[in-house]
Amino acid sequence: MLRRGFQGAARLSHHRALLGASCILPRLNPTSAFGSSTDSLVSRFCPKETDLKDYALPNASWCPDMLSLYQEFLEKTKADGWIKLPSFKSNRDHIQGLKLPSGLAVTSDERDWRIFTRCIQVEGQGYEYVIFFHPSKKRSVCLFQPGPYLEGAPGFAHGGSLAAMMDETFSKTAYLAGEGLFTLSLSIRFKNLIPVGSLAVLNVDVDKIEDQKLYMSCVTQSRDQKTVYAKSSGVFLQLQLEQE
Amino acid sequence: MLRRGFQGAARLSHHRALLGASCILPRLNPTSAFGSSTDSLVSRFCPKETDLKDYALPNASWCPDMLSLYQEFLEKTKADGWIKLPSFKSNRDHIQGLKLPSGLAVTSDERDWRIFTRCIQVEGQGYEYVIFFHPSKKRSVCLFQPGPYLEGAPGFAHGGSLAAMMDETFSKTAYLAGEGLFTLSLSIRFKNLIPVGSLAVLNVDVDKIEDQKLYMSCVTQSRDQKTVYAKSSGVFLQLQLEQE
Repeated sequence: MLRRGFQGAARLSHHRALLGASCILPRLNPTSAFGSSTDSLVSRFCPKETDLKDYALPNASWCPDMLSLYQEFLEKTKADGWIKLPSFKSNRDHIQGLKLPSGLAVTSDERDWRIFTRCIQVEGQGYEYVIFFHPSKKRSVCLFQPGPYLEGAPGFAHGGSLAAMMDETFSKTAYLAGEGLFTLSLSIRFKNLIPVGSLAVLNVDVDKIEDQKLYMSCVTQSRDQKTVYAKSSGVFLQLQLEQE
Repeated sequence: MLRRGFQGAARLSHHRALLGASCILPRLNPTSAFGSSTDSLVSRFCPKETDLKDYALPNASWCPDMLSLYQEFLEKTKADGWIKLPSFKSNRDHIQGLKLPSGLAVTSDERDWRIFTRCIQVEGQGYEYVIFFHPSKKRSVCLFQPGPYLEGAPGFAHGGSLAAMMDETFSKTAYLAGEGLFTLSLSIRFKNLIPVGSLAVLNVDVDKIEDQKLYMSCVTQSRDQKTVYAKSSGVFLQLQLEQE
């Protein structure tokens, strides 16, 4: 019922309401729980063997803060239940083998598709980031280092680049914590500017899952937590996906 | 007083509160109006003679909708008071000759600084956009065509790429309409996905200027106005700038 509801919406042409509230929020059938467990979503999302390049690995551009916090979280993946999420060039690589609503079906195509936050491939110039996720806590931490191609005010990251980093971290968290797929809303209060080349830490929590929606919050701050860069909230829509 | 207040804040090191409310919102001195007229800001922003490349000009990647609406607005620049804003590789090029708060002073630097929304220079792959501004209406229209490097869901623009485009259009509007410089908040409700390679039109209005803040709203829709992609609001902080 739910899938059919969204498929109906998704079949509409590109220029019609894909996400209009009347289309995307069909009445929830209380007997149809969201099927995929977080474990199965995580194992699909983090393939053990793949030839795809993982962009969420340290490189020479990472600042010492970013490197050492990365190592700290890597230790936590061994004992504390944290998982390091791989990050491929395209979202298409993450959703291989999932049956998507037909309007979103992946068609073969020669174009060089890139997920926005991996749009710049020169190390250190654009987005450097890695996301760690904790399934049972439904929490994520994103280590983010903006490069000089992400500038807004001279020497500082563009507010929009942080907005996109938040949306992306929310998005991956929503997907893994409860099949959340689409951003319904994003609200940000900016407090301080992030210097280009420095580390900002995004702490994301799923606050509740209700009525097919995931409600999340994020505090972005310096590593020492003394400077809050921004606070934000995001609401994502759940969509049940099936394996092919 | 106002300048000193922000300069004080800006002198703080990068990791201290640049934009903490207590620092950036000193009590407004009612006798000190914001000095620069919109006309002088616009003429500074749109230099008649410059060697800088303007990225807001048509290229072979623009879709027919984008091209024809561009031509329509170009006509409006001749009679209806609209202004086409140039778009350089870096914000640093726009603010040459302005005395900035010291924490934001532009230092000479060999790095390839790019404003985030011009981070990708390959035509058609990333951001294609042009902003038109109407000084007396305090209104902007941004024609935005996302390329395949801005992908989120397969075939559609990442929500974060639209968020950044909104922030950038708000930012330029806020600056020209009233010396608005910094995003304080950004709030977006997403309604529909924007297909990669198609035109989205951002309609921005300055709703009010009060208490050193510009309140703006934006409706993003298809050219035929039948599909609303998103609605958003933004609040920007005014900062008085002086010519050197």
